[in-house]
Amino acid sequence: MFTLDPHLAADSFEICALENVQVRLMDDARYWWLVLVPEIDGPMEWHHLDETARHYLFDVTTHAASVLENLARAEKINIAALGNMVRQLHVHVIARHEGDVAWPGPVWGVGDALPYDTPTRGARTQSLQSLLMA
Amino acid sequence: MFTLDPHLAADSFEICALENVQVRLMDDARYWWLVLVPEIDGPMEWHHLDETARHYLFDVTTHAASVLENLARAEKINIAALGNMVRQLHVHVIARHEGDVAWPGPVWGVGDALPYDTPTRGARTQSLQSLLMA
Repeated sequence: MFTLDPHLAADSFEICALENVQVRLMDDARYWWLVLVPEIDGPMEWHHLDETARHYLFDVTTHAASVLENLARAEKINIAALGNMVRQLHVHVIARHEGDVAWPGPVWGVGDALPYDTPTRGARTQSLQSLLMA
Repeated sequence: MFTLDPHLAADSFEICALENVQVRLMDDARYWWLVLVPEIDGPMEWHHLDETARHYLFDVTTHAASVLENLARAEKINIAALGNMVRQLHVHVIARHEGDVAWPGPVWGVGDALPYDTPTRGARTQSLQSLLMA
C-alpha cells in the first residue's frame, strides 16, 4: 500500500493526480516548484520502476516542465531526482529565473521556504490544475 | 552543427557515445559522476527535444543510473538536468554515498573538483565503457 512520505506531505500539497502520479506544489512561494510522486510503494530509484511506470513518470515530468515554463515564464527548468534525504521516489520540476534567491545554484538548502498565503496558493493551484490536466 | 559547450569539454571527458548521446565522466574523482549530452544543437530543455530524442535521452539516463549503481555500489543515484550556468542540454547522473563530501546535499558547488590520476581514470573509463556499451 502506498503511503506518502511524511516530509513530502508536510512540505507540499497535492495539485492533482495524473494516473498514479501525484503532482504536488512545494509550499515555497519563492519558486514555482512541483514534486511528482508515483503512488508506488518501494522503489527509491527511477530506474527501479518497471518500464511502463518509468516512462509514464518521465512523460509527466516533461509535461510539468512545459506547463511550468509557460506559466512561470521560466528562464530555465530544473529537473531532478535526488532523494538523498527523503528516499521515497520523487521528481522535482522547478521554474528558475535569473535573480531568484538561489540563482544560478540549485534551490536545495538555500534559505527558508516561504509558505504560500491563501490567495496566491489558490491562484497557482487553479492555473496549474487546468494546464496539467488539459 | 553540434559543438560541445567549452565548460563541459573542460570539466569532463568522453567515455563513449550511445547513438547521438555523449556519455562523459566529470573529471572529479570524488564521485562517479556522468554527464550525458545529446549531440543536438539548440535545445536547452529536455522537453524541447522531439519525442524520439527525448525518450532516448531518458533511456540512456536510466541505463547509466543502473550501471553506476552497480559499479560504484551507490547508496543513492542523483539524476538532474539543471543547466542554469551551462545552457547546453546535459543530464547529470551521479552515484552518491553516505559520507561523500557533499552528502546529503547536492554535489554542485561543494568544494573543488579532484582531477583523476591517470590509472584511476583509465580503470573507470574501461569499466564504464564495457557496461554502458553492453
